[in-house]
Amino acid sequence: MSTAGKVIKCKAAVAWEPNKPMVIEEIEVAPPQANEVRIKIVATGVCHTDLYHLFEGMHKDGFPAVLGHEGAGIVESVGAGVTEFQPGDKVIPLFISQCRECRFCKSPKTNQCEKGWAADSYDVMALAESRFTCKGKKVLQFMGTSTFSEYTVMNQMAVAKIDPAAPLDKVCLLGCGVCTGYGAAVNTAKVEPGSTCAVFGLGAVGLAAVMGCKAAGAKRIIAVDINPDKFEKAKVFGATEFVNPKDHNKPISEVLAEMTNGGVDFALECVGNVTVMRSALESCIKGWGVSVLVGWTDLHDFAARPIQLIAGRTWKGSLFGGFKSKDGVPEMVKAYLNKKVKLDEFITHNMTLDQVNDAIELMKLILNWDCMFCILKHSDMLRYQLCE
Amino acid sequence: MSTAGKVIKCKAAVAWEPNKPMVIEEIEVAPPQANEVRIKIVATGVCHTDLYHLFEGMHKDGFPAVLGHEGAGIVESVGAGVTEFQPGDKVIPLFISQCRECRFCKSPKTNQCEKGWAADSYDVMALAESRFTCKGKKVLQFMGTSTFSEYTVMNQMAVAKIDPAAPLDKVCLLGCGVCTGYGAAVNTAKVEPGSTCAVFGLGAVGLAAVMGCKAAGAKRIIAVDINPDKFEKAKVFGATEFVNPKDHNKPISEVLAEMTNGGVDFALECVGNVTVMRSALESCIKGWGVSVLVGWTDLHDFAARPIQLIAGRTWKGSLFGGFKSKDGVPEMVKAYLNKKVKLDEFITHNMTLDQVNDAIELMKLILNWDCMFCILKHSDMLRYQLCE
Repeated sequence: MSTAGKVIKCKAAVAWEPNKPMVIEEIEVAPPQANEVRIKIVATGVCHTDLYHLFEGMHKDGFPAVLGHEGAGIVESVGAGVTEFQPGDKVIPLFISQCRECRFCKSPKTNQCEKGWAADSYDVMALAESRFTCKGKKVLQFMGTSTFSEYTVMNQMAVAKIDPAAPLDKVCLLGCGVCTGYGAAVNTAKVEPGSTCAVFGLGAVGLAAVMGCKAAGAKRIIAVDINPDKFEKAKVFGATEFVNPKDHNKPISEVLAEMTNGGVDFALECVGNVTVMRSALESCIKGWGVSVLVGWTDLHDFAARPIQLIAGRTWKGSLFGGFKSKDGVPEMVKAYLNKKVKLDEFITHNMTLDQVNDAIELMKLILNWDCMFCILKHSDMLRYQLCE
Repeated sequence: MSTAGKVIKCKAAVAWEPNKPMVIEEIEVAPPQANEVRIKIVATGVCHTDLYHLFEGMHKDGFPAVLGHEGAGIVESVGAGVTEFQPGDKVIPLFISQCRECRFCKSPKTNQCEKGWAADSYDVMALAESRFTCKGKKVLQFMGTSTFSEYTVMNQMAVAKIDPAAPLDKVCLLGCGVCTGYGAAVNTAKVEPGSTCAVFGLGAVGLAAVMGCKAAGAKRIIAVDINPDKFEKAKVFGATEFVNPKDHNKPISEVLAEMTNGGVDFALECVGNVTVMRSALESCIKGWGVSVLVGWTDLHDFAARPIQLIAGRTWKGSLFGGFKSKDGVPEMVKAYLNKKVKLDEFITHNMTLDQVNDAIELMKLILNWDCMFCILKHSDMLRYQLCE
């Protein structure tokens, strides 16, 4: 019996308030309105940004919400005016839209979209009001996506149609972390063939950045992390050397300068720590070194001495790896199917939606090691996978 | 009677210690050694960097010294192995060398030179020991140049031969301030035709940045300064609008965002104030805004929230406007002779070398207005010129 046009009752993890476990609830998902698509979520990851919202950012007015923004699914039904999607299409929900019409979408310089999610705010669905209710209350859509639900509704400008051959329990990773790290190297830093790179933080984003540096032809990829156990994994993605700042009595920037005759060409910060951001910049060679902020935090300022830039370094930032979302995600899916991009190697744990709080606790535990992390769920009915 | 090969006794302003007036002394200038050029300085400017060294930076081991680094002169004699210069050549001493051989000189990405002045140190002549003595003591060459002297000695890799038609009392400005501001817009920010720019601080460097924005084809050039008297001058160089932060009750970045539908494409900080550096970055449009640190300070950190970069802004810095010095300065001299670049309009005061302390006091007075400034001397026998 078709569910099109009807309210769907389904399971979702509802974050009712900050600093509390999410609650698995039955929610109502309204039918898609004009230009909207209702998606059956098949697999999703758990990302630091979810944790951040729940425990650190705690933006007011951000609750109750359904978190999750790294998912993949199948179109269940479409609203009026939607011609690009049909029920059955495999899709990835996008937390950055691509309307193709605004001045940002028309510029080759950016993946921002003026009509969609604004990088300066971070709380709720920007394209439309939430289509979720639970126990009579409106429930917000986190980052416009809300993949910790069996169904979600998205504006079509924030949905990417992907190859029907794609395994959703793998390519869901392209909804956030892997594109973010890979693209930061390829699109934002514009890593060059033969160059020397440093990647700070070997979580999923950092590992993806390592993979991006390798894809761009870097000659040396120096992986930096305080957990030496991660180096074996980093080698799988292309790291050529490993440095543990704890092994040295001097600043990591000096260590890297000595290893590289003055500093690296490209340094990617994949932790979200303002002290590491400074180290990454200072690790770059003067004259042309480029450092990119990839890890997310907005609790503190990042800082450096002016001479660090005046001497010729460039400081950039990357959001979703600089990928124009509707264009870039399907291309990355193809790259995975063509074995140009690794995804399976990121996955270490499988869990179910009912275990979402366990997944969050695992993630917090890993964070307590001061490491990057990524948790993925995939399913049928939502298994979680953890990438150290 | 030729002075070649002999010690020259001449007049110079010696800075014996920090926070004290300079003293006009008779100094001895040794003959140029291998690969060196002895130059009769005909005109020079006084720049904030001189003041900074004398009163703010006060680097240890930086005294006694002859300051001044924005000069022009005539080759008096050359050392062994020098074939590029002959006595009588008009030249501009360069505080950044261009050896044409090191990895930096060979890269199109930077104007740093590994063999010469290092951007990370700032005290003394880097290419050779000083050729100055006074009262039996070695006197240092500030920034390798020391143009507050009737004669100086430079390594040939830090001297630019310029068009014989060039008036030295004008083109001396190309030894620092004008190239710094102009090049920051043209070479570092890479201002684009039709773009919207903001220039913070309307001293000589800021006015030159305005001129660079105009030369690059900017459509709107918004001049920002807390002294409204400067706008008339800024218009001469191409400013199209003026904003005085004191006229507004909200951050200047918000004012500019409202004027420009979200922010400017390029923002140049020409003050050397870390608070203004942050404002300049925040005044850029997300997605592609580029902010450049042009003003010099190393007393404090500059800082911002990570989202400012993650949203797509780029933070760069510019040293000597990104010009490869030996290549760029002669081209800028030609541009002046061809009336493509203004210099005369910067000059407001003429003074003599004997008045160097008066010039410094004038500069401090202007600094007390929180403004940028530039003082020039030119001569026959060293007159000073002040540009507000």
